[in-house]
Amino acid sequence: MLASDYMSLAVAAAKRGGPATYTNPQVGAVIVKDGQVLATGYHHYFGGAHAEVDAMQQLTAAQLRGATLYVTLEPCSHFGKTPPCCRRIAAAGLQKVVIGQLDPHPLVTGHGRDYLQSHGITVETGCLAATVATLNRHYDWFYLHQRPWITLKYAMTLDGKLTAQRGQRSLISNHASYIDSQHVRQHFQAILIGEQTLTIDDPQLTVRLTTLAHPPVRLVLLNNSTAAVNTKLTQPSTVPTYLLCRQAAASDAQLSAQPNVHVCIADWTPAKVSAWCARNGWQSLLVEGGSHLQADFVAAELVDELIIYLAPTVFGGQGLPTVTGVAAASPLTFTTPQVTVFGDNLKLCLQRKEAQ
Amino acid sequence: MLASDYMSLAVAAAKRGGPATYTNPQVGAVIVKDGQVLATGYHHYFGGAHAEVDAMQQLTAAQLRGATLYVTLEPCSHFGKTPPCCRRIAAAGLQKVVIGQLDPHPLVTGHGRDYLQSHGITVETGCLAATVATLNRHYDWFYLHQRPWITLKYAMTLDGKLTAQRGQRSLISNHASYIDSQHVRQHFQAILIGEQTLTIDDPQLTVRLTTLAHPPVRLVLLNNSTAAVNTKLTQPSTVPTYLLCRQAAASDAQLSAQPNVHVCIADWTPAKVSAWCARNGWQSLLVEGGSHLQADFVAAELVDELIIYLAPTVFGGQGLPTVTGVAAASPLTFTTPQVTVFGDNLKLCLQRKEAQ
Repeated sequence: MLASDYMSLAVAAAKRGGPATYTNPQVGAVIVKDGQVLATGYHHYFGGAHAEVDAMQQLTAAQLRGATLYVTLEPCSHFGKTPPCCRRIAAAGLQKVVIGQLDPHPLVTGHGRDYLQSHGITVETGCLAATVATLNRHYDWFYLHQRPWITLKYAMTLDGKLTAQRGQRSLISNHASYIDSQHVRQHFQAILIGEQTLTIDDPQLTVRLTTLAHPPVRLVLLNNSTAAVNTKLTQPSTVPTYLLCRQAAASDAQLSAQPNVHVCIADWTPAKVSAWCARNGWQSLLVEGGSHLQADFVAAELVDELIIYLAPTVFGGQGLPTVTGVAAASPLTFTTPQVTVFGDNLKLCLQRKEAQ
Repeated sequence: MLASDYMSLAVAAAKRGGPATYTNPQVGAVIVKDGQVLATGYHHYFGGAHAEVDAMQQLTAAQLRGATLYVTLEPCSHFGKTPPCCRRIAAAGLQKVVIGQLDPHPLVTGHGRDYLQSHGITVETGCLAATVATLNRHYDWFYLHQRPWITLKYAMTLDGKLTAQRGQRSLISNHASYIDSQHVRQHFQAILIGEQTLTIDDPQLTVRLTTLAHPPVRLVLLNNSTAAVNTKLTQPSTVPTYLLCRQAAASDAQLSAQPNVHVCIADWTPAKVSAWCARNGWQSLLVEGGSHLQADFVAAELVDELIIYLAPTVFGGQGLPTVTGVAAASPLTFTTPQVTVFGDNLKLCLQRKEAQ
C-alpha cells in the first residue's frame, strides 16, 4: 500500500466523527508498522480524545515504537481540552508521522510539525491534500480568513422565484429536498434568516432528523424585536436564538427574559454579522433567506457557496425573485455545479470561484 | 428479432431526415421477409419520397410480395405532394403492415389503416409507441391541438436573472450553450422575440451552423414598427420577418417595402400569436424572450416546454428577473428536468405536465 492509501483510510475514519466534533475539526489517524495497519482512530466528539490518541490507545508500547502515524491534520502541540498529541507521539517513540494538512488554527499551525521534527521524528506533509481539504472546509476557511464560511441556501422555481406572490409563503421543493435541507443544516454552526422570513414562515430552524450536541444557533436580522414576539424562535428552547435588531423596542426586555433568547442591538450589515459570528467562534453561517437578505449578502460579496433546490414550477411575472433588493457591484461567479437529483427536484451546489 | 426491434430500426432511419422534412413529419420504414431485413427507408426531405416508398423502391416485385412493412407513422391515403402510399403498398402485395402511431393529420388519421385492412392486409398499430412519439412531438401536437408546440428558451443566472441591469444586455451562457441553442432553433418553424429584446440585443434569429431548406420564420411582438427600423431583422434576407404590431406607424410602409419583411397590425396576445401561427401552418414556436414576453406566455398558459441554460453566476438584487410582468393565475408545473452539462453551464429541458 502507498502512503496515500493509508491516508485514505484515515480520511474515511475522520468522517465518522461528523458534526459531533464541532467546533473541532474532523480528524482521522492510522498507525502502520511493517506494512500492517495496527490501529485506526478518529476524533469522536468535541472534548473527546484526538484521533492520534484514539489510535495509540489501542496499541502496546512495543507496537508503537518505530511505527508510522498517518494523520489527516497536523497533531496539536498546545494544551487544550486534552494534552498535546505531539508530546505523546514523541514519548511513544514513533518513527515517522505523515500529515494530510497543517492545522490552520493559529495555536497549532507549523508548531506540531516543528515539535515532532525537533524530537527526531521524520515528518511528511501534504499527503492526499486535495481529499483531506474536503474534510473541514468550514474550519479551514474560518482560521485562514478569520470569518465564517457563508452558504446561501434557497429553493427556487424555474423562473427564479421564491414565492408566487410577495408576502405569502409558497411550498416549492419536494419532500426529498426538505429532508436533504435538514441534513445540510447540521453541518452549520449558525443559521440566519431575515424579518420577512420570520413573519411569513415562522420557522423553527432546528435540525429535526438527528440529535446534535451543538446544534446551530439561530439568528434573525430585524429592524426591531417586535416582529419576534410570539414566534417559534423565541419559545423556550435548548438552542439559542439571537435577535439582531437595528433598533431598540419595548419588546426587548420581555424577549430577553426568555431562556436562550438574546436581543443584540447594532447597525447590522452582512459584514458585521460575519465579524460577530467570528468573534463567537462560529465557523459557518447558513443564510436561509429571504430574498432581500440574500441580495444583501450578494452585494457584500459574502457568499462562499450556494445550495439551490430547483423545483419544476414556474410562478410567472409577479412572483418574488429569489434575490432582490440592493444591487451587486459586480456578478459573483461560481464553480461548475454539483447536481443531485431528488425526484423532480434538482439540488445544485456551487462554490464561489474566489473561494477556491 | 421482435417487432419492436424492427420498429427501432425504423425510428433510427426516421431521424436521418431531421428538420429537412418540415413541415412533414420524420418517418422511417423497414421491410422484412422471412426474418430478414430487406430494405430500410426514410423521408429524406419535404416533397421527397415517403419512407415506405423509399424502402419499397429498393426491392423487386418478388421481394415485396408477402413481406411485412414496419413504419413509424400510418401510411398516407390521400394525394399530397406524392401519390398515396397505401395504394402502392396494397398493389405490391405486402402481407402485413406494423405501424408505430396513427397519423394525427386529419386527412390521414385512421384512413390509411382502414384502406390497408380493406385490401386484405394485416395491420398492427401502436408498436413501440412511446419511442415513436418522440419523433414528431411538434407535428403531433399541432394536429391534435390545432396550435403550435410552444417552447420558452432562456439563459439565466443562479438567482433567476436575465441581465445584470434592466435595459442592458448581459452575456450569461458559455460558448457550448450558444452552439446548442443554435441547434435548438433548427427544430422550430417560428421564433418570437419582444420589443426590448429587439432594441437591446438586435439579434438575427437565424440558424447559423447549418443550411435549412425552410429555416424558422422570425416574429417580433411590438407596440409599433418604429423600433424595427435599421435592425438586423429587417435587412434583406431569404428568411421572412413578421413585425406583429399593436399599432400602425409611419415606418410601416418603408419596412413593408423590404423583401420578406411583413408588418401585421392587430391586438396581439399570446393566444392570437398562437392561432395565427396555426393558420400559417407553423407547427412549433420558440419564444426567445425577453422577460415580459415570457411572463405573457406563462400567464396565458401557452408554454409546452422550457429550455433553460443555467450559468454559474449571481447578478444580485437589481438584475432583471427571467420572467417578470403580468401575474400568472396559477403556477405551471413541469416534468422531471432532463439535464445536459455544457462545461460549467447546465441545460435543463422540461415539458409541461399538462402536455404529457
